[in-house]
Amino acid sequence: MHWSKQLIPTLREVPQEAEIPSHQLMLRAGLIRKLSAGLYTFLPLGFRSLKKVERIVREEMDRAGALEILMPALHPQEIWENTGRFDVLKDVMFKIKDRQERKLVLGPTHEEIVTDLVSHEINSYRQLPVNLYQIQTKFRDEIRPRFGLMRAKEFIMKDAYSFDADWDGAEKSYQAMYEAYKRIFKRCGLRTKIVEADTGAMGGSSSHEFMVLADAGEDGLVECGSCPYAANLERAESVLRSAVTFDGAEKMPEVVATPNRRTVQEVSNFFKSSPARLIKTLIYMADDKPVAVLVPGDREVNEIKLNRALSAKSLVLADNPTIARVTGAPVGFAGPVGLSLPIYADHKLKGYQGAITGANQADAHLVNVDLERDAKVTQFVDVTSAKGGDGCPRCGNGTLNEKRGIEVGHVFKLGTKYSEKLSALYKDAEGKEHPAIMGCYGIGVTRTLQAVIEQCFDTDGIIWPITIAPYSVEVLVINAQHAESAKVSVEIVAALKAAGIDVLYDDRDERPGVKFKDADLLGIPIRVNVGEKSLAKGVVEIKMRKTKELRTVPVAEAVNKILSTIRELNDEING
Amino acid sequence: MHWSKQLIPTLREVPQEAEIPSHQLMLRAGLIRKLSAGLYTFLPLGFRSLKKVERIVREEMDRAGALEILMPALHPQEIWENTGRFDVLKDVMFKIKDRQERKLVLGPTHEEIVTDLVSHEINSYRQLPVNLYQIQTKFRDEIRPRFGLMRAKEFIMKDAYSFDADWDGAEKSYQAMYEAYKRIFKRCGLRTKIVEADTGAMGGSSSHEFMVLADAGEDGLVECGSCPYAANLERAESVLRSAVTFDGAEKMPEVVATPNRRTVQEVSNFFKSSPARLIKTLIYMADDKPVAVLVPGDREVNEIKLNRALSAKSLVLADNPTIARVTGAPVGFAGPVGLSLPIYADHKLKGYQGAITGANQADAHLVNVDLERDAKVTQFVDVTSAKGGDGCPRCGNGTLNEKRGIEVGHVFKLGTKYSEKLSALYKDAEGKEHPAIMGCYGIGVTRTLQAVIEQCFDTDGIIWPITIAPYSVEVLVINAQHAESAKVSVEIVAALKAAGIDVLYDDRDERPGVKFKDADLLGIPIRVNVGEKSLAKGVVEIKMRKTKELRTVPVAEAVNKILSTIRELNDEING
Repeated sequence: MHWSKQLIPTLREVPQEAEIPSHQLMLRAGLIRKLSAGLYTFLPLGFRSLKKVERIVREEMDRAGALEILMPALHPQEIWENTGRFDVLKDVMFKIKDRQERKLVLGPTHEEIVTDLVSHEINSYRQLPVNLYQIQTKFRDEIRPRFGLMRAKEFIMKDAYSFDADWDGAEKSYQAMYEAYKRIFKRCGLRTKIVEADTGAMGGSSSHEFMVLADAGEDGLVECGSCPYAANLERAESVLRSAVTFDGAEKMPEVVATPNRRTVQEVSNFFKSSPARLIKTLIYMADDKPVAVLVPGDREVNEIKLNRALSAKSLVLADNPTIARVTGAPVGFAGPVGLSLPIYADHKLKGYQGAITGANQADAHLVNVDLERDAKVTQFVDVTSAKGGDGCPRCGNGTLNEKRGIEVGHVFKLGTKYSEKLSALYKDAEGKEHPAIMGCYGIGVTRTLQAVIEQCFDTDGIIWPITIAPYSVEVLVINAQHAESAKVSVEIVAALKAAGIDVLYDDRDERPGVKFKDADLLGIPIRVNVGEKSLAKGVVEIKMRKTKELRTVPVAEAVNKILSTIRELNDEING
Repeated sequence: MHWSKQLIPTLREVPQEAEIPSHQLMLRAGLIRKLSAGLYTFLPLGFRSLKKVERIVREEMDRAGALEILMPALHPQEIWENTGRFDVLKDVMFKIKDRQERKLVLGPTHEEIVTDLVSHEINSYRQLPVNLYQIQTKFRDEIRPRFGLMRAKEFIMKDAYSFDADWDGAEKSYQAMYEAYKRIFKRCGLRTKIVEADTGAMGGSSSHEFMVLADAGEDGLVECGSCPYAANLERAESVLRSAVTFDGAEKMPEVVATPNRRTVQEVSNFFKSSPARLIKTLIYMADDKPVAVLVPGDREVNEIKLNRALSAKSLVLADNPTIARVTGAPVGFAGPVGLSLPIYADHKLKGYQGAITGANQADAHLVNVDLERDAKVTQFVDVTSAKGGDGCPRCGNGTLNEKRGIEVGHVFKLGTKYSEKLSALYKDAEGKEHPAIMGCYGIGVTRTLQAVIEQCFDTDGIIWPITIAPYSVEVLVINAQHAESAKVSVEIVAALKAAGIDVLYDDRDERPGVKFKDADLLGIPIRVNVGEKSLAKGVVEIKMRKTKELRTVPVAEAVNKILSTIRELNDEING
């Protein structure tokens, strides 16, 4: 493809709308353009890379035995109501009424739709297992679309859904996807960290996320320095490394006047104590009933964990009048001692002695509190997030490090949540009906594309992995007016194309500096400079984008050298 | 692919929801399933054929130099308001408010979006011409979704948009698409009729539709029996073959009492005359002003043509009080003689003598009317549809035949309508700004897939053209329990796969009759029957789906014979 016939609107300036490197580079290299908040057009070069990612995804899904289908983006709202998920996801779903006033939604995911399909088309164990996937456009009404393709209102996802007759089979299906995902991201040139994750709105028993470590990542995670344990912050467990026994551990509780000291900061300053010594007491309404939740003073409640721990349908912080009524004190002075509410204490509080808590009276705290001795803890639960510096819950020795990541893939064991509600039943050999056991598996295809750039760039621009570069090779004629240079360039381009290589030929009549800068920005892995001076010596230059290595090669050997370099780059990624 | 591992839910019965053969067959062969009115899921086999159609479209668009991009389906409503098309298309657009109450629509087409893109990215004649295309999902809130993929709420379209610096260039871009479309449909195994068409809501100067002739087609068209003229009914012109001079041609108008005779039928019965002798007079409000529109009694007003002829922004039939006021008579007795309104007469009325019209008084008609002598015709215009039996407007000799067709492609010369409104301007060599000259080009990809079936089937099922068949070859083992049959089958499948052929292997443990019936229903072009009896003679059977020809081939020669047959079938289509 001649550059002059392609649409590659590169930008010199960093666009104001873009905060993170990958978003800036996608705009600057002319890969995408914004139509509106969270809505992007793929320009030709962005589209080419997108198709290459899709192709890798498709090949690996097919190799794993999954069957490709295509489901509609528009869904009857009713089917979402049938599983109760309309209520869970209604804020994030775009809702539509058609001209007959029928309620439709744009699908943010497809568990309901695929399960409904399977409920009609599959009825025997002989038809199982089956794994159905699609590469399809999803829509989500994000509160804050940002970072380009990272969090968009419209994006391309690969979603797969496995149906098995038994739990062993479901486990195999899950493992097959887990392995396929590893291969997919590797082939895209992406280094991912696989972490344990929460199942969230999806339901199901367990899940893993494929994360790309990046400062711009929206997800937090911890990983152990000593063992393979790694988990999403929503999910991660940890053990406390810091002390649980404080001064006064052996004494009995004592009321201390703490006028107007309400916050952890105010109280710990007052007592000249570390915040960790405090037991923070929060009053929640769980299914409209008040409960007390205790966490160390230096930790926050992780409401995802709390939700799971209480199995509550609704969970909100109590309002001030309720707090005053159930604790007998204004806000800021609640504590577990003498409290006649169900008390859920974070497991990190186990063994807390000599602690400070609210006294359940205005302007007063208790010191010398031994939690288990002095309060009636209903249950110890895991309701705080892990932090860097905590101990590893798996190996016990290691220390957890906190990182930021971009979630590019997610695999879930769903169990029978959907197949039961939507009657995706199969008959076993005896003719008895059972719900199929499901898994679901997602890859953010457009997000993956951008995540590669977030991981592969330098100050000059993108450094594409050859497997998903818009073109494998760029031939750059230094002076387009020089007949011999143009002739040699065209010959190299033609020979490469004949060998099945996708080549971009920068034939523009621009200054070499402009063309070099654009080439670095675009980040095509292999660049061939064809110039008058080199040709006078019978050579062309081959420049590697990643290493910046510059090789001089006789014209006659150029094509073979490029082909072998392409093979090397591919082997580096796939090997 | 083993049938037992594929999802091919064939149906014996014709589903009630499907009226036309292609829709019935897509359901019966397990290609698609309905989610809801106008919303379909592609099952694996349907998806495979869809991808093959897309690939042909992509190859031909790329070959024609078009650049593939991908634009969002969600659009800000504002951009549609900028061209005034929101008002034109608002009924057919799905409208959404996001959580910030911003108005969005789902794109039924992309002229506005692509022109907005080009307005930002292209500014010099040096960047022109450019043709941007996408294969993308469109959404339309159809009043009556029906016939499966033919008229769906969500469907896949290939839409392309060309931008040129001058009209000659625009004509070349149009011709390039016209030729590409011919190749695309030919390669899909589809016979299309290219007809002149109206530009409708798209605007622009001229257009052609690619039609698949079919009784189930929703579009009417006429074609000349003697010359290549063919046109969509909305557009087609024709000349009258029947008489325009009737009894009483030489006499002067005379009022005849016609008590309660209002309709053409009633009046022509009363006068024992052919309906064609009547001049039907309709009162329209064109931009809120009354006008009279005259057509022969046996013709209807084609409002698309009338709209174009009057260049009116709004056009509706007048209500009864208005008719009474402007004609002086109740409804049913209007006529052109003495009427003080602008009078637009269909050109087929030219020379009408001895005609019958309303007398503009209750219960009375005029006979012996010579239209041009007795009435003040403002303008003769083409406002009736052509009919079978009319004369050809092009060659003058031929007679027009009326047909039904399915529109699978449409090419438009748009001119500068969008580039002016959305400032898609380019600078010429002197630095002067001009609006780019546009064309737009659509192919209903999902509709094309179904149209192929509507054209290629018999009583047993689908007859796929090899170019878009889900699989090129089906290997059918007659008795899956017979070891030698299974072994030979697997060997043939493996050899074909190694040669790059996509093969479906019916390995099911079903009765041969069931498998034969399914094979015919699926319509894979080449079937290989592997059975005990044939193997005993050292042969397998090759059955051609289209011709039903059955060839017996020695096992050792089977693969080569199949490969050469595939080449022949491909050559038949592409040659």
